[in-house]
Amino acid sequence: MVKKTVVVLGVDGYLGWATALHLSRAGHDVVGIDSLVRRRWDRECGTQSLIPIKTMPQRVSLWNRLTGRTIRWRLLDLRDAAAVTELVRDVQPDALIHFAEQRSAPFSMIDLEHASLTQVNNLVGTLNLLFALRDYAPHAHLIKLGTMGEYGTPNIDIEEGFLTITHNGREDRLPFPMQPGSFYHLSKLHDSHNIQFACRIWGLRATDLHQGVVYGNHTDEVAMHPGLATRFDYDAIWGTVLNRFCIQGALGLPLTVYGKGGQTRGFLDIRDTVACVRLALEHPAAKGEYRVFNQFTEQFSVKALAQKVSDARAAHGLKTSVVHLPNPRVEREEHYYNAKHQKLLDLGLQPHYLGDTLIESVIETVERHATRVDPVELEQPNVDWRRGGTAGWHQRAESPIRPVVLVSPTSKPRRPSSAAVASRVAQRR
Amino acid sequence: MVKKTVVVLGVDGYLGWATALHLSRAGHDVVGIDSLVRRRWDRECGTQSLIPIKTMPQRVSLWNRLTGRTIRWRLLDLRDAAAVTELVRDVQPDALIHFAEQRSAPFSMIDLEHASLTQVNNLVGTLNLLFALRDYAPHAHLIKLGTMGEYGTPNIDIEEGFLTITHNGREDRLPFPMQPGSFYHLSKLHDSHNIQFACRIWGLRATDLHQGVVYGNHTDEVAMHPGLATRFDYDAIWGTVLNRFCIQGALGLPLTVYGKGGQTRGFLDIRDTVACVRLALEHPAAKGEYRVFNQFTEQFSVKALAQKVSDARAAHGLKTSVVHLPNPRVEREEHYYNAKHQKLLDLGLQPHYLGDTLIESVIETVERHATRVDPVELEQPNVDWRRGGTAGWHQRAESPIRPVVLVSPTSKPRRPSSAAVASRVAQRR
Repeated sequence: MVKKTVVVLGVDGYLGWATALHLSRAGHDVVGIDSLVRRRWDRECGTQSLIPIKTMPQRVSLWNRLTGRTIRWRLLDLRDAAAVTELVRDVQPDALIHFAEQRSAPFSMIDLEHASLTQVNNLVGTLNLLFALRDYAPHAHLIKLGTMGEYGTPNIDIEEGFLTITHNGREDRLPFPMQPGSFYHLSKLHDSHNIQFACRIWGLRATDLHQGVVYGNHTDEVAMHPGLATRFDYDAIWGTVLNRFCIQGALGLPLTVYGKGGQTRGFLDIRDTVACVRLALEHPAAKGEYRVFNQFTEQFSVKALAQKVSDARAAHGLKTSVVHLPNPRVEREEHYYNAKHQKLLDLGLQPHYLGDTLIESVIETVERHATRVDPVELEQPNVDWRRGGTAGWHQRAESPIRPVVLVSPTSKPRRPSSAAVASRVAQRR
Repeated sequence: MVKKTVVVLGVDGYLGWATALHLSRAGHDVVGIDSLVRRRWDRECGTQSLIPIKTMPQRVSLWNRLTGRTIRWRLLDLRDAAAVTELVRDVQPDALIHFAEQRSAPFSMIDLEHASLTQVNNLVGTLNLLFALRDYAPHAHLIKLGTMGEYGTPNIDIEEGFLTITHNGREDRLPFPMQPGSFYHLSKLHDSHNIQFACRIWGLRATDLHQGVVYGNHTDEVAMHPGLATRFDYDAIWGTVLNRFCIQGALGLPLTVYGKGGQTRGFLDIRDTVACVRLALEHPAAKGEYRVFNQFTEQFSVKALAQKVSDARAAHGLKTSVVHLPNPRVEREEHYYNAKHQKLLDLGLQPHYLGDTLIESVIETVERHATRVDPVELEQPNVDWRRGGTAGWHQRAESPIRPVVLVSPTSKPRRPSSAAVASRVAQRR
């Protein structure tokens, strides 16, 4: 393996941190960048990571103590063009892994302010990067985190970025037609178009990872020490569906399916995310190439996922109920879905498929941190695609500091009883 | 005809002003909005309209004196969300014609600052409108000026916005795959996706006019009085190709073709622009419908246009030369191009096709205002797609005020001699 100098943008995030550790351990020289804005958004939304996470300086210094490896940490806002230019000029990276975007669909749908913030933040940061690369590191490989959500749910097979189309007797290979489902997903599509254009006119090289929904919270590196934990979101704004189901299952709460639950998406284990990024890094795009990898390993419908969590609980004699809530999103609830995901397999990806063991390990993590669960976050979605954020989306004015949950740290199991949860839910209403 | 209350956003611009007059004369109640930023950008770029234009208050008051009709003029920046909300709430429009965007591809390619400004300005303004419509005028019809440049130059026929695709035995009607060619064109594509999404989730109604390159400077209304003139750009940043050729032809300068000149695009007369907008207005999209009309009447290659201008001059015994300059853009110079443009014809559009008469009338206008021509603007493109703005793109530091061109106002013809132009060009070097 050739050692590369890699900038991980968004290193304080769920996947950014795990990726930085994975690449550092693999021997690459990692520079980690973040504005820490996600911690501020947590305060705004009244949300927090289920698993406590250390500050960036604490985490990189612990990593250094444990492994002898250095991650160079820099506080930097990607919207600051001069700072981005200086970063690229100084570091002269071989590659940049770009996670540094607002990444929640519900957050982008709260209201105009959040829609606009999401699109401007994501576009401007990426434009700043593209121009800095053109001027100071035109050979560097940009690895951009996109989303499978750019495609939407067309009634044809989803290819990896491009599609050969025959029309009126002529043929061309063209960008796959896209139908994103939120202002966040749209921001990723806007980025994709901008990056593709920059590759075409400036000869930059980029890999757009159209990623599915990630689950899990452990990679080999994160698991080395509790102080290396990466964040784990379960709330209605930042959490993803499988993580939410595991928490609901662990607490004995019903699993909340939005609408009919026939919504089908691509999913992957966080261990595969870090492996995919490394594969893209070690097999770079060619000069002038813009390529798309669909980054997921399996497709599931939401109701199939709920069933899997129920089944894993049933194996321990626990009964889990599933409730269908009115869908806060505007999306098809029964649809065709068949998305290709061959390119990363061709590069050597060894998938971790979703099994009971993973679900149980997530549930076990939840139980360990059960005192940090805010059950109100698990009840109802608090952002509606049609009307925006409902009263409960942000830090509640009447209780700016979340009440301490009174569960004895010595009680076994730490999982609060359904009755305790119900009583806490009642208190918060 | 049902009288409609219509907001024209970007009413101070080349097409916005002509459209406002056309709709006002047709009996609609017109509210005209502009931030006047274009006049500021002219100062920044050292450019100006060939035809002198009055201030907005002067123009609307003259219109009122001449016709008895009122255009309600408001100074407003579309990026100001609160002002946009108030506008929509107060006016309760039946329709909004949205021209209020940065609309120059070269301007967007000057540097990072201008790329970012273009995309943020255009996206944020349109997002502000979409949310204001959702909340205060969900039945209003948004008529958005897009561009044929969103499509790029695919090797298949270009349809109007959507394409039925058969793939692996399944079929869907999907957005046409897009490949825009500048950060400006990309901004229009981003808007298109945002608008399409807003129609889908909020039931808004929108028409996206994917317009070709507009030429000409007279409509029936603009022609009523010199004080009603609309702007006419010929420089390398704001001007379009046919207008530039007409000015070059009028001044006896060579016509400057970028590259091979096989670049083929859709074109239309400004009289057809105002007619198309009126057709869209009077035949609105349905609730929840996002539709695309390709708004042009004829296709030409750049070299064919140069030939047309040469031919029109030759009919008067004048010889015009054509020079090929290195192409400052990154684009195909020989390609297939066949774009559909049936929907506006189906609604009743009566095209004004490009003929010698039009070219001669433009040339005659140029001659009338020849003293205002800055020949340096006609020489070389000053923004390069690969490297950005060259030294000459902005107001030249050494001559912040353009020199007065000493051509006697009584000389006939007013057209400066080639020798005079050559000497002025030399002075400016």
